[in-house]
Amino acid sequence: MIRVNENFLKLRAGYLFPEIGRRVRVFKQEHPQARVISMGIGDVTQPLAPAVIEAMHRAVDEMGRRETFRGYDDTGVGYEFLRKAIVDNDFGQRGVSIDLDEVFVSDGTKPDTGNMQEIFGVENVVAVADPVYPVYVDTNVMAGRTGEASDEGQYAGIVYMPATAENGFVPSPPDKPVDMVYLCFPNNPTGSVATKDELAKWVAYAREHKAVIFFDAAYEAYISDPAIPHSIYEIEGAKEVAVEFRSCSKTAGFTGVRCAYSIVPKQLKAYTRDGRAVDVGPIWKRRHCTKFNGVSYITQVGAAAIYSPQGKKQVRQTIDGYMVNAARICEGLTKLGYKVYGGVNAPYIWLQTPKGVGSWQFFDRLLNEVHVVCTPGAGFGPAGEGYVRLTAFGLPENVKEALDRLARL
Amino acid sequence: MIRVNENFLKLRAGYLFPEIGRRVRVFKQEHPQARVISMGIGDVTQPLAPAVIEAMHRAVDEMGRRETFRGYDDTGVGYEFLRKAIVDNDFGQRGVSIDLDEVFVSDGTKPDTGNMQEIFGVENVVAVADPVYPVYVDTNVMAGRTGEASDEGQYAGIVYMPATAENGFVPSPPDKPVDMVYLCFPNNPTGSVATKDELAKWVAYAREHKAVIFFDAAYEAYISDPAIPHSIYEIEGAKEVAVEFRSCSKTAGFTGVRCAYSIVPKQLKAYTRDGRAVDVGPIWKRRHCTKFNGVSYITQVGAAAIYSPQGKKQVRQTIDGYMVNAARICEGLTKLGYKVYGGVNAPYIWLQTPKGVGSWQFFDRLLNEVHVVCTPGAGFGPAGEGYVRLTAFGLPENVKEALDRLARL
Repeated sequence: MIRVNENFLKLRAGYLFPEIGRRVRVFKQEHPQARVISMGIGDVTQPLAPAVIEAMHRAVDEMGRRETFRGYDDTGVGYEFLRKAIVDNDFGQRGVSIDLDEVFVSDGTKPDTGNMQEIFGVENVVAVADPVYPVYVDTNVMAGRTGEASDEGQYAGIVYMPATAENGFVPSPPDKPVDMVYLCFPNNPTGSVATKDELAKWVAYAREHKAVIFFDAAYEAYISDPAIPHSIYEIEGAKEVAVEFRSCSKTAGFTGVRCAYSIVPKQLKAYTRDGRAVDVGPIWKRRHCTKFNGVSYITQVGAAAIYSPQGKKQVRQTIDGYMVNAARICEGLTKLGYKVYGGVNAPYIWLQTPKGVGSWQFFDRLLNEVHVVCTPGAGFGPAGEGYVRLTAFGLPENVKEALDRLARL
Repeated sequence: MIRVNENFLKLRAGYLFPEIGRRVRVFKQEHPQARVISMGIGDVTQPLAPAVIEAMHRAVDEMGRRETFRGYDDTGVGYEFLRKAIVDNDFGQRGVSIDLDEVFVSDGTKPDTGNMQEIFGVENVVAVADPVYPVYVDTNVMAGRTGEASDEGQYAGIVYMPATAENGFVPSPPDKPVDMVYLCFPNNPTGSVATKDELAKWVAYAREHKAVIFFDAAYEAYISDPAIPHSIYEIEGAKEVAVEFRSCSKTAGFTGVRCAYSIVPKQLKAYTRDGRAVDVGPIWKRRHCTKFNGVSYITQVGAAAIYSPQGKKQVRQTIDGYMVNAARICEGLTKLGYKVYGGVNAPYIWLQTPKGVGSWQFFDRLLNEVHVVCTPGAGFGPAGEGYVRLTAFGLPENVKEALDRLARL
């Protein structure tokens, strides 16, 4: 008799964004005249850069001619032209040396962060920030690394590290050993960034406890402060303890195109029950090549174009535009008397809700009274209660309109 | 201390195709003048259909304009325009009724067949044919559903069902209960197909034992015999016991573009340890939306174009061309005194190697003596020993040349 994986039955409710989508759909059905402005789901609004469009047209044409047609990406890990662009631009130019075969091109950081845990033992103890991007937790629940959920939605067995105004939304390492740590900087959802010193503490902790850090740097392109590290490998010794995730989604508007990559350094080891060290890279490669079949050639050509001189300039312009939004949102909300965090080196603004107003309650109020969609902080964890997340990804005219409406609230 | 998932350490050697690739690379380095013809890896050679190219250009342009730009595919399971085309054409036209929300669009049948096992308990007993597409087995090894590998490369705990010339390469259900059965028809690697009666036996078996069938129909477009079912759902009662996988890779040359889908019927149930039935569809959806972030919009538009009148005609022409190759290969090899199977309703030809010549030995002989690449049957399992797989996906001139060279062997 076919048995279900009962770990899936431990999962709480729907995934956050579908629930938001559902409430918005219900509202729109009941108020067909209302013009709803979304500042909630972290999706971009600006089109792909002209350099990317041009490159993808070229790649589509190649796929239409027998002489230039490409089938499977035989490497399994991404065309060398793309991995070389990644290594040179994302790392080399910041003084970090990454080898071509440490780069694994994929279709998203959501899949990468969700799948990476699979190559590690189910007995490992997981630590995440609270609030946290739900994928880190849910995929560990599915894998059986947790017990049941509490009423607050936290799972037994996971070490939650509150990210609060007091610690600048950058948790310090816990005072007990854990094995798998998920860090995301610039942070989703709080918009916080980690300094070199803060990351160095984490690297030291991981080295001491032989832990592995899953470093989600999907938003690194939004860092403007030159003192803030873009990669965890800017910290000495990090290659021995950290995997890093990067994405074209927010860097270059690829949310609907799907391209990302993970870095698994050669120095990274994991251990058998009898204490033998094994290389993580080949195991990840085995998983990647067995359960994944590469990214569309057209997508990879488009992604490589981000690193061309024109592409770089165009992508930068779009990011700068989003960061103008972020500055306006922070300024506007501060003027209205709200306390806001983030929005400086990150596309997310973490807005403290008025005293006594819960984050789903504030979500419903914004939706119903001014037709603005935000993301309830409680959806990211109990420490997110009392906050909502706003994103800078809207169109400038919508940002302005949303701020005007908020002023009327 | 970070523990590795020791199940990964049970995996034997490399994945079959990288090993072939390695041997071919070594040969080419040592014989830079040789013109190697690949009849091995199952990759297509004909370009995408003009209708697909045209549609993808249009989609690329849409992505370059703010008004028509698309970010995340909010449904998480594929745009409705594509799911509707799938439901109407792949099923409706064969008298099978599939609901839109039973379709889950993905980036490949390799990922789908690899990931689907994850939502079922680790205690389930798995049955596969021998020879078998390695992904079915390897992903169950990774998940911990097996013990160690034998010297022959078979894993303890898996029920292997020999597919031999005697049973027409279509195994019957085992005489003991199993929980998860992988079937692939038209078959990779043997090129066999299952009749309605043969599939009906499997559906009856699964219903009797509450097993689930993972039906890989990635090659259904190659069926020309009207009596052969394209979908397992053409068998009464199959929706209660079967998931089906389909792919654009071989149907429309999407190996380098990446689009596929799985069907999870609403009637399909799995059971908790205490015997409670739960719906499989919502659990698969939860996994799909948590660990995957949708297929490129451009790719989905391209895939939908396969179902346009022009697209259908063009795709059919390409498949017909491949099947002309298949017929030539079968005829040529038979003339040379070889015994061949498959190649009629499938793009694979299963060639019996000369007596006393092992399949890797025959592989090396073909590579070294006539510079033709095949796939050793033993790479698919012990019952594949004594066979090699040839594919019909080559260019016609290469097929002719390869046959001429084989004649000289």
